[in-house]
Order: sequence, then structure tokens, then C-alpha cells
Amino acid sequence: MNPHDLMQTNPLLSDRVRLAIMALLTGSKDEVDFKTLLDRLELTKGNLSSHMRKLEEAGLVDVHKSFVDRKPLTTYSVSAKGREEIRNYLAKVEAVLQSAMGR
Amino acid sequence: MNPHDLMQTNPLLSDRVRLAIMALLTGSKDEVDFKTLLDRLELTKGNLSSHMRKLEEAGLVDVHKSFVDRKPLTTYSVSAKGREEIRNYLAKVEAVLQSAMGR
Repeated sequence: MNPHDLMQTNPLLSDRVRLAIMALLTGSKDEVDFKTLLDRLELTKGNLSSHMRKLEEAGLVDVHKSFVDRKPLTTYSVSAKGREEIRNYLAKVEAVLQSAMGR
Repeated sequence: MNPHDLMQTNPLLSDRVRLAIMALLTGSKDEVDFKTLLDRLELTKGNLSSHMRKLEEAGLVDVHKSFVDRKPLTTYSVSAKGREEIRNYLAKVEAVLQSAMGR
């Protein structure tokens, strides 16, 4: 496995915060709201907002807006494309690093 | 496995170019010179220089300077710390993403 193969992974996932967000969404059966992401990942609002916008623009997450008790609620889920990119990222990283470490 | 665990990985490895550099060095029995890294990873000199400086300053790679035919030659190898951080990175990413994908 060639280290250069890592260049074919989605550049957006090449960031541990965004990778953690995607892992959390991928592992959740239900949609996840903004506050839960904030709490689970211990991020600031500005930081999380910026990452979510990038992931949304790239089509890796789906955004759902609704009202609960007349308050707006935004929830997120991983998109089909996002799931595919995460699977591809893990496969590439595993193959390249395991090969490098002689595992 | 908690997605937040990804925050404990070395932030320098959370970049696919630096991860590819580290994988290449980790998989090489011998020291690797600058030109080989350039060719194998298809990077520009400035880009590679900048990444190597960061990895060196963080103690993840060892730098060796010598002369061959009176010309200066710089070669790189992964440090013990670098090897440890790479192993840790792979273990965390595997555990978090595999758990998220229900594997």
C-alpha cells in the first residue's frame, strides 16, 4: 500500500475534530442536535458551527430544521456520501499505516 | 469507543499529507532523502519543507545531514516518539470509526 493513496481521501476528514464529528454522527441511530455535539466533543459554538457548515457544504452531513415547543431545533445526520467517505478514509488509513508498521 | 478520544491524538498527524509522510518514513528501513519524499508524494518543495519542519520541531522525525560527493544531503527517519504517535493515531482512529460503523 502506497502512502500516496492517502491523498485520495476526502481532505475534509483530514482533521481530527471533523473526523470526531463524523464518527459521532455515523454511530448515532437518530439525528443529533447541535447542543449534544457541543457537549460530547467539548467544542466552542463558533468552532462547531464552522465545522458543521463545511461538512454540510461538502454534502457529508444532512441538516434538519424543525420547531420543538416553538423553538427552532437543528439536527444533523450523516449523509450517504458522508458514510461512504468515512468508510473510504478508514480503509485507506488502515491499509497505509498497517503496511508501514509491518502489521 | 468515544469520538472525543480522537482529540487525544497528535494534532500534527491530523493532516493527510503529514500522515502520508510519516507512513512513508515508518515503512522505510533506511533513511529517506528529501527528493525521494518529493517524488513519492508528489508535493512541491515549499510544501514538503514546511511539513518536515513541523514534524522535526515536534520530535516526530529525526533529521540527518551529511555530504555525498561534496554535496549536502539531508535524510529523514521516523523517531521513536513518531513511531509511538503513529501507532496511537491508528489505534484511536480504528477504534472510533469501527465502533461508529458497527464493525
